[in-house]
Amino acid sequence: MSSGSSDLKSKFLDVYKTLKSELINDPAFEFDDDSRQWVDKMLDYNVPGGKLNRGLSVVDSYQLLKGGELTEDEVFLSSALGWCIEWLQAYFLVLDDIMDESHTRRGQPCWFRLPKVGMIAANDGIILRNHIPRILKKHFRGKPYYVDLVDLFNEVEFQTASGQMIDLITTLVGEKDLSKYSLSIHRRIVQYKTAYYSFYLPVACALLMFGEDLDNHVQVKDVLVEMGTYFQVQDDYLDCFGAPEVIGKIGTDIEDFKCSWLVVKALELANEEQKKVLHENYGKKDPASVAKVKELYHALNLQGVFEENESTSYKKLITSIEGHPSQAVQAVLKSFLGKIYKRQK
Amino acid sequence: MSSGSSDLKSKFLDVYKTLKSELINDPAFEFDDDSRQWVDKMLDYNVPGGKLNRGLSVVDSYQLLKGGELTEDEVFLSSALGWCIEWLQAYFLVLDDIMDESHTRRGQPCWFRLPKVGMIAANDGIILRNHIPRILKKHFRGKPYYVDLVDLFNEVEFQTASGQMIDLITTLVGEKDLSKYSLSIHRRIVQYKTAYYSFYLPVACALLMFGEDLDNHVQVKDVLVEMGTYFQVQDDYLDCFGAPEVIGKIGTDIEDFKCSWLVVKALELANEEQKKVLHENYGKKDPASVAKVKELYHALNLQGVFEENESTSYKKLITSIEGHPSQAVQAVLKSFLGKIYKRQK
Repeated sequence: MSSGSSDLKSKFLDVYKTLKSELINDPAFEFDDDSRQWVDKMLDYNVPGGKLNRGLSVVDSYQLLKGGELTEDEVFLSSALGWCIEWLQAYFLVLDDIMDESHTRRGQPCWFRLPKVGMIAANDGIILRNHIPRILKKHFRGKPYYVDLVDLFNEVEFQTASGQMIDLITTLVGEKDLSKYSLSIHRRIVQYKTAYYSFYLPVACALLMFGEDLDNHVQVKDVLVEMGTYFQVQDDYLDCFGAPEVIGKIGTDIEDFKCSWLVVKALELANEEQKKVLHENYGKKDPASVAKVKELYHALNLQGVFEENESTSYKKLITSIEGHPSQAVQAVLKSFLGKIYKRQK
Repeated sequence: MSSGSSDLKSKFLDVYKTLKSELINDPAFEFDDDSRQWVDKMLDYNVPGGKLNRGLSVVDSYQLLKGGELTEDEVFLSSALGWCIEWLQAYFLVLDDIMDESHTRRGQPCWFRLPKVGMIAANDGIILRNHIPRILKKHFRGKPYYVDLVDLFNEVEFQTASGQMIDLITTLVGEKDLSKYSLSIHRRIVQYKTAYYSFYLPVACALLMFGEDLDNHVQVKDVLVEMGTYFQVQDDYLDCFGAPEVIGKIGTDIEDFKCSWLVVKALELANEEQKKVLHENYGKKDPASVAKVKELYHALNLQGVFEENESTSYKKLITSIEGHPSQAVQAVLKSFLGKIYKRQK
């Protein structure tokens, strides 16, 4: 991150306080003390506790596009857009945790696990989602790019929910049928469920705020979606091969029958006998089965395959980026790529 | 309903087929056969099976505003807006059923109760919600009222979710604390959770399509929200005093500790001894407790109080409506009122 980033982050967090205060006093609803306190706590619990990479990258990207010092107003507006992405993320996580019956999130119990909350969490997810258009309307209604901004958030949310849908129906329906898994379904899940909102959305927000027409930036979208896919492949890789003390968790993708890049790659490379090992052991909780899957990953040299894949992806991305006519846009894309290339966590 | 309404209804249902077909072929997502079939079934199961009153009333209202025959295009567009409201309703119902752990809806098992569905239903709710902006964008993007339409749906969804929130935190949190219930909280729950989307939204859609500025129609909003509140009071009344064979279900508001108009009115009218009876028996499953509450409702003459309330509401509404400068708008509002006044189901 650039120097002065801790200053930027503290300004970013100030914007959160402003937005929260506006939302719990929104004149479109008659709040009373109970409901105001509920939303206040719910937001503090679910919105600002992540790494804030997605949100901050809107401010970063806008700064790179402008190429000079931002005004107070620009810092506020780009931060507000960044927070809209963090709100979107919080909305998905609250509902995902209910669907996955998860226990912890960001080092604390999942929101729906709190005794006072329970299933109210589903409605809180909806409230989080509804805050986005409230923020956009309050701060962007008069801007020439307002409609495009609203359309953008709607389209990306639709794509994310659709990606989540194919993940759920592929991973959960039926009884652990590995034959459904393939590189093509993995790519579709990752692209829609993660890449659009985590990589494309922040840059698209910055471009709109900078006055650009997104129809002229299909190439930027393609590069960012590609980068998001590469990011998720890393994630899948680190779940098995990363150092738990570095990534901060012990991976359980094998136990959880996840449609991970590792298993789809293994299925592609395996001979009949090895496929049988996968079918028999993938998605089982017992350590012996997990060990057999990992052994197979080693036998197939998935670490080497991953490293080759990483290097190919990187070169391809750099070539695409350097083909872009605008130096400022190149800087935005390279900044994203720099943050994730060869990451260990 | 007007003559020709069955023709209108069949046209309305044709529009559903068109919209569904567009949604399962939306180019913003790469569908495969599995995901296309999933959404197809999910929509058929959850969207068109209700009474469709909200959706049809957009077409009715637009017709009354125009005062003449509708073109094919007008029928299609007003129907599409009507379907957006039905989609909104389906989205709320799918998620409400999960939150309430309900078993049946519209005479069939709740969507999430189907063995193949389960918690995927939460994401399906989100998909339903996301279809609304897809429909609006496809058919209204070029219209001068497009932004207002998107803003309207967002604001009304926010109000509905906020109403649901106060209902949930008042009704569920803590251990059945009747002292939280009052006419004022009942009014707020009903107004936000039901009246905005069921009564105001259809008319607001018709007004926008007719080229009106909603800022000039605050009076219309107030009348419709009042009507929606009155509608819910009837609903609460019928749950206890309606004929089960007419309303199609056996009411359980007393057992379920619902914040019903009857219990808040009873709390208002009761003496200390009667209040004690309510506190001891409301929200209990056993028939003896339910009978004691009903006895008290009779002793307090809640049927008479309801009838007086109904007649006062009606007169007040008629006076407000007749004060409106436009005969066409008056016709729209009277048509709504006529459908609900003294209803038995």
